[in-house]
Amino acid sequence: KCNQERLWNSIMEIGQIGHVDVEGSKVGGCHRLALTDKDKQARDLFIGWAKEIGCTLRVDAVGNIFLRRAGTDNDLPPVITGSHLDTQPTGGKFDGIFGCLAGLETLRCLEEQNIKTLRPIEVVVWTNEEGARFKPAMLGSGVYAGVFKLNDVLTTKDESGITLGDELSRLGYQELINNEDPGCYQYYEIHIEQGPVLEALEIDLGIVAGVLGMRWYDVEVTGRSCHAGPSPMNLRNDALVGVAEMITELTKLASSFSKDSRCTFGELNIPNSSTNVSPGKVNFSLDLREGRLEELDELQTKAFEIMHRIAFHHDLELSIKETWSLPPCPFDESCLTNIQQACEATYPEIKPHTLISGAGHDAVYISRVAPTAMIFVPSEDGLSHNEREYTSPEQLEKGCNVLLNTIILAANA
Amino acid sequence: KCNQERLWNSIMEIGQIGHVDVEGSKVGGCHRLALTDKDKQARDLFIGWAKEIGCTLRVDAVGNIFLRRAGTDNDLPPVITGSHLDTQPTGGKFDGIFGCLAGLETLRCLEEQNIKTLRPIEVVVWTNEEGARFKPAMLGSGVYAGVFKLNDVLTTKDESGITLGDELSRLGYQELINNEDPGCYQYYEIHIEQGPVLEALEIDLGIVAGVLGMRWYDVEVTGRSCHAGPSPMNLRNDALVGVAEMITELTKLASSFSKDSRCTFGELNIPNSSTNVSPGKVNFSLDLREGRLEELDELQTKAFEIMHRIAFHHDLELSIKETWSLPPCPFDESCLTNIQQACEATYPEIKPHTLISGAGHDAVYISRVAPTAMIFVPSEDGLSHNEREYTSPEQLEKGCNVLLNTIILAANA
Ligand SMILES: NC(=O)NCCC(=O)O
Ligand SMILES: NC(=O)NCCC(=O)O
Repeated sequence: KCNQERLWNSIMEIGQIGHVDVEGSKVGGCHRLALTDKDKQARDLFIGWAKEIGCTLRVDAVGNIFLRRAGTDNDLPPVITGSHLDTQPTGGKFDGIFGCLAGLETLRCLEEQNIKTLRPIEVVVWTNEEGARFKPAMLGSGVYAGVFKLNDVLTTKDESGITLGDELSRLGYQELINNEDPGCYQYYEIHIEQGPVLEALEIDLGIVAGVLGMRWYDVEVTGRSCHAGPSPMNLRNDALVGVAEMITELTKLASSFSKDSRCTFGELNIPNSSTNVSPGKVNFSLDLREGRLEELDELQTKAFEIMHRIAFHHDLELSIKETWSLPPCPFDESCLTNIQQACEATYPEIKPHTLISGAGHDAVYISRVAPTAMIFVPSEDGLSHNEREYTSPEQLEKGCNVLLNTIILAANA
Repeated sequence: KCNQERLWNSIMEIGQIGHVDVEGSKVGGCHRLALTDKDKQARDLFIGWAKEIGCTLRVDAVGNIFLRRAGTDNDLPPVITGSHLDTQPTGGKFDGIFGCLAGLETLRCLEEQNIKTLRPIEVVVWTNEEGARFKPAMLGSGVYAGVFKLNDVLTTKDESGITLGDELSRLGYQELINNEDPGCYQYYEIHIEQGPVLEALEIDLGIVAGVLGMRWYDVEVTGRSCHAGPSPMNLRNDALVGVAEMITELTKLASSFSKDSRCTFGELNIPNSSTNVSPGKVNFSLDLREGRLEELDELQTKAFEIMHRIAFHHDLELSIKETWSLPPCPFDESCLTNIQQACEATYPEIKPHTLISGAGHDAVYISRVAPTAMIFVPSEDGLSHNEREYTSPEQLEKGCNVLLNTIILAANA
């Protein structure tokens, strides 16, 4: 059994790094973009805690951090658990952070109760999971899984032109430490749901059977800028007016397409905008998600058709560039069974709910190189990527206990 | 008669300061925001040219530049003509610049042909007409006319927090030179039309009877940000989805309201935006224009109703702040008659077209303190606030000749 208070206090303490007071929030939000000074502070604090309980440190070439508790047979590949410490620009205190701290709490319990496991156990902190600063998301786990080339990721730039590699070395996280890959026997990640399903069902434990497929696009719409005064409405060629229709139509499409379909316009920019200039160019991001590959393809086809039709109708040029693509990801059956068993053993009175994650997680990439599954705990109001994100100490404790018992099962197999 | 080649060459030479090559543009565009280093270069060049023909310099407290050619009775208030040298972020080579250079060409002709006038004549360069860097537009002429308080304008900040006053002193234009206001007998401004009317009529000369009323608003729409993946479409509270509907509906409203109504969304910003976050807040600018005050009021009322209805329907908070308001402005009858007479004398074969300007001009503010009117020349394709802005040397010459003869009429009255 884990220590609820220690788990909660650690989450709150690390959440002070980047803390923001927010009206209507129980614990405040957290602004801690990947590989900023604040991210380094959080990483350093986390490593310090793990070292206090005797863990050894490994850092790989993209700054992923592995903290290892030895097993009785250290030639066996470790069981790995963890998540990320970076947040969205207006993030909360739980997304990612809970997964790392629950991993740490697991090791603290094993150490405290002097429990030995056959396999070593590692807690991992993946670099730049959110994709808010460096795009796309899940870059660190993507490199680990061989999905992204190391050099491509190191030269990825943020909005101000700084590369991920430069930030790693500025923060002292480019230094390879014990960088010999011991492999991964199984990977487990616990996370807040970031959606409303578990809360609505009033079930505190979720077993994540898989993740929606998702695609990101950079869209550029070009018309002709003109003066806001002398240009009659019917002679304009306003890119934003076309884009507004696209937003409305695609939102309608995704709302009626299937229960799993999602369509989000997260970023929108008018280059060189000015109050009295009708926009000649608009750039925006489009994020489409679906549960099955054929449906994702169909959603994309329909969305593109609509955008082309609107662009044609308004005499606008349209360019759509895919920047990230992830097929729907089913998790490993035996890992799911381990979680199921750990749930039954720990909370026989709870019937955990099996669900599909709408959010991508590092676990998606790791599932390509090791058997993987995830555990969810509820999110209050289904909120995430929002400063008001919240999960209660009791709910976090339940999830952490299931993780602990899952890890013990896996590490002794 | 003015010197077409000299006028054109001067416009092209000053347009090199901030020049950008643009595909499909005959002469390229110009990026020269108010009170940047480039604006200073253009001001210095302009002053140098005027001094070469013996003009004396006056600079007032907001950096407006007056270049004076003496009359035979220098106790009389001068006839003033001019415009501005600043451009939009993606501006052209004629908006404002032509008015300053046509004023200079007028003085060059008088000097060359040794023509004396009773009254002194001044060519003026107003500070920050465009409103692209410091908001709102027409700040320099607004201070001159007593519409804005000097100190408010000096402390106005650009997007990066730099004040207009700081920039004036950095560029050496805070220094008062001969800053004693001699008054203004009449003010004439020549400008490109920035719209399609004269070109469609194939008439090269426009007499501007007045200017549309216009209002600027800062609008903020607030919903709740959430994660692009786990949040079902029907549970979202997406500010951008609401704003997209507002853009579509208000564009429709202005398109059918009256032939003079205009509605423009020039700027739109999602604070802390991220690809996988559905926007919780959107800020945008709204620019409404109409020909008559009652209609402007009615347009505003309807626009606000629509925005409130959409906000309510999507459960969004809405805040609308008016940032600038200009009632419709009729110009002075006797000034208009002078222009009419100058047209008849110079180009008896042309029947100039009388029209209303959709763009605000420094002349609007000056009309509150001195009799004022404007002359227009055509804009190719009706384009302005666009790098492809163009008016031919022949058309500029015609306008300049009418200005020259108008000024001679006025300066001898
Ligand atoms: N969990 C999470 O926020 N992941 C970021 C990737 C995504 O957009 O789903
Ligand atoms: N002429 C011009 O571009 N003026 C700027 C003020 C306006 O937006 O009309």
